[in-house]
Amino acid sequence: MKSTCPEQNITLIKQANIYPDRGLLTRTERNERAGHKSGVIWLTGLSGAGKSTIAAGVEKELFSLGYQVSVLDGDSLRAGLNGDLDFTIKSREENLRRAAEVATLFADTGHIVIASFVSPHHKGRQFVKSILRENFYMVHVKADIEDCVNRDPKGLYKKAMDGKIANFTGVGQSYEEPQDADFTIDTSKNTVEASRDLLLNFTQNLFHL
Amino acid sequence: MKSTCPEQNITLIKQANIYPDRGLLTRTERNERAGHKSGVIWLTGLSGAGKSTIAAGVEKELFSLGYQVSVLDGDSLRAGLNGDLDFTIKSREENLRRAAEVATLFADTGHIVIASFVSPHHKGRQFVKSILRENFYMVHVKADIEDCVNRDPKGLYKKAMDGKIANFTGVGQSYEEPQDADFTIDTSKNTVEASRDLLLNFTQNLFHL
Repeated sequence: MKSTCPEQNITLIKQANIYPDRGLLTRTERNERAGHKSGVIWLTGLSGAGKSTIAAGVEKELFSLGYQVSVLDGDSLRAGLNGDLDFTIKSREENLRRAAEVATLFADTGHIVIASFVSPHHKGRQFVKSILRENFYMVHVKADIEDCVNRDPKGLYKKAMDGKIANFTGVGQSYEEPQDADFTIDTSKNTVEASRDLLLNFTQNLFHL
Repeated sequence: MKSTCPEQNITLIKQANIYPDRGLLTRTERNERAGHKSGVIWLTGLSGAGKSTIAAGVEKELFSLGYQVSVLDGDSLRAGLNGDLDFTIKSREENLRRAAEVATLFADTGHIVIASFVSPHHKGRQFVKSILRENFYMVHVKADIEDCVNRDPKGLYKKAMDGKIANFTGVGQSYEEPQDADFTIDTSKNTVEASRDLLLNFTQNLFHL
């Protein structure tokens, strides 16, 4: 039996003869052990806005402070779990769906997940939000497109502007700025360290038990 | 650019413009914090052999002892991440591939993962092994098919024998007993508690720092 998600191209199969079992441990027990709540901070923003840098910095600081924390990012997932996906609209949506499901698994296991994905469209972000049911926060890592193009840490804007990458977000494809972000960090106005500390404080406030 | 895995139907895409970043934390740092190594115990065996029961029991015991541990099982993944997959040969392989990739993510984050999947064929288990590069152990949870049919905890053998499930492992489809398992637990000869303790001891011996 197949059904298509509303507004999504992904076909989910209504599974018969499946008996999901959450095991003997609860998320609450895991949170009590860790000493903090678990959940997901989802960073959205242009390539070059600083998502991965901020995510790695916050992960390291939180780990030093004793938190259970992990980072999920688009490029790392595409090197493994999502290695079968290309960059068509359908594959991009599937990329986000899987990322959200993996983030759920980590959050259920007691982790604070810093997820770093361009996630350029409102529809896709809403889809992610619908999968992550609790302790989910959308953070916009905002930067002027000119700054992103100048930084161009992976050389992708250059390639896109040379016509070597089609539909690159910010060049051939639009980025819809979120109107419903729980927090916004402007890396055109803040240093890397200041941006990291803003997210660190935001996260600690949200996840203390 | 596309390539097909040898002996597998899954098409992996050679990703261009992808820059995987393992972040600032190493697996070693995470292992030192946790006080133990991380890796994957992969339980293979017939439905009803006791994989999920043993996995949940070992998870609870290890957690009580202070370990970072999590369970991945087929039914739970099919309720989320693998909800787009059916039971064709190709989908079953993709189910295992994603499970192995998620297990890798958890192991990299410091967890001992108890993965519980029927994984009936040698070829599929070899594929899993090729993805999980370090600290990977295959454990055969073995039981006589008659015992599995009598236990039938999910009522699936009955459905399969009534012709309501096609290609059910042990009824319409073969289970290839592993010749290369790192450990075998025979639940036709051991109680649930004894089986759990066998896996608990096996795991603790392997993952101490």
